[in-house]
Amino acid sequence: MEKLTLIKVGGKIVEEQEALSRLLASFAAIPGRKVLVHGGGRSATAMAARLGIESRMVGGRRITDRPMLEVVTMVYGGLVNKNIVAGLQALGVNALGMTGADMNILLSDKRPVQEVDYGYVGDVRRVDGAALSGLIEMGVVPVIAPLTHDGKGSMLNTNADTMAGETAKALASRYDVSLVYCFEKRGVLRDENDDNSVIAQMTRSQFEDYRAQGIVQGGMIPKLENAFDAIRHGVREVVITRADAIGKEHEGTRIVE
Amino acid sequence: MEKLTLIKVGGKIVEEQEALSRLLASFAAIPGRKVLVHGGGRSATAMAARLGIESRMVGGRRITDRPMLEVVTMVYGGLVNKNIVAGLQALGVNALGMTGADMNILLSDKRPVQEVDYGYVGDVRRVDGAALSGLIEMGVVPVIAPLTHDGKGSMLNTNADTMAGETAKALASRYDVSLVYCFEKRGVLRDENDDNSVIAQMTRSQFEDYRAQGIVQGGMIPKLENAFDAIRHGVREVVITRADAIGKEHEGTRIVE
Repeated sequence: MEKLTLIKVGGKIVEEQEALSRLLASFAAIPGRKVLVHGGGRSATAMAARLGIESRMVGGRRITDRPMLEVVTMVYGGLVNKNIVAGLQALGVNALGMTGADMNILLSDKRPVQEVDYGYVGDVRRVDGAALSGLIEMGVVPVIAPLTHDGKGSMLNTNADTMAGETAKALASRYDVSLVYCFEKRGVLRDENDDNSVIAQMTRSQFEDYRAQGIVQGGMIPKLENAFDAIRHGVREVVITRADAIGKEHEGTRIVE
Repeated sequence: MEKLTLIKVGGKIVEEQEALSRLLASFAAIPGRKVLVHGGGRSATAMAARLGIESRMVGGRRITDRPMLEVVTMVYGGLVNKNIVAGLQALGVNALGMTGADMNILLSDKRPVQEVDYGYVGDVRRVDGAALSGLIEMGVVPVIAPLTHDGKGSMLNTNADTMAGETAKALASRYDVSLVYCFEKRGVLRDENDDNSVIAQMTRSQFEDYRAQGIVQGGMIPKLENAFDAIRHGVREVVITRADAIGKEHEGTRIVE
């Protein structure tokens, strides 16, 4: 099978022009088939504040009422996505910005109201790997914003880590997929104050131990859940590292089933 | 050659939910290959105002400094475009939202500063008809926002009427193209106060006469210039009409070389 690299980059990296330029250069240098999934939460929060809309988060997830859905649709799908696409095109990468609604590549269910009403938030139901693969085989590089749709006419705000994991899984029957989660640190750290304490490799049972010990916590827990889910569903390689390490083989935390 | 219908819809239609729903239903009912190009100026002006950014227009064209470029990128490329795409997907149309940067389909030159500095405004240099046709032959329906890029990393605000005309021209060697410009009126009117005074057919020399007499004026002049340019470059049919007339054969003003 052909190799495919799927990079997920988070907020800070895509929202600062200098960090973004470095990221885009690293991404452009990756040989072969590739996909980029991006976040943009900080830009959405900043834009919401400028519009007098308060950002409310529960467990790291954004409550998305109708005004906030408009903000994330325009910021993720418009501002952040097109900035990346134009930047990649300037580097000769044939980028195509997409949300889950475009070509219906990621269909979601609006999250049911339980303890919390998250509003217009989507839980991914289906990724169209065939449609994505059709584009990729045309030489296109999909650049995916953290938005899906419900198939009934509404966009839905969707977690970018989950979208990256689900997309990697959907492509795993067609490609030899490497999924790289990029964030600010060099990898998952044994000691959050020591950047050199990167855990080089992590099995699920080690993850459970680290979680019980409080070594992994907060937003890292759902990220690792996505990572283990991807490995379990045929993604060949999942690595958690910093954006500057893209293309470097021996950096970051490697997830092992 | 296969028939292809290219519909251009302006601001008011795509920005009011009820009018938009009617438009999307009419568009979905068009058989065969099709493309939608949309505007969004009123939404951009409204969003800019909410952000405390003043909209400055010269000859009907928006002055686009960097803050305004951010507004149009997020409003046209995000809010308006994804609303249309999600709505079309709900109707079973395999829509793909795009700007000129996506797959590099419309490359522009930043307009040179002459009497007016329009800022980040693009004049279309090249439309990639082959890339668009590749998508269309996959069963995809491109939904194009009025934004292009300069190939050097910057988005550019671009007139939707021009984008529609240039796209129709680029597809004319591959398809039997019908270009329909939709606006609020039933067609070009002989008397602007009489909705029944539609000019059924217009040649270029008639256009020159109507212009000299002041019967056509304002924003209709560049629209008609685009229309005649498209007809001259192989587009089979150009019609100017209201959105409600989509799919009706004998409505509107037909442009004749």
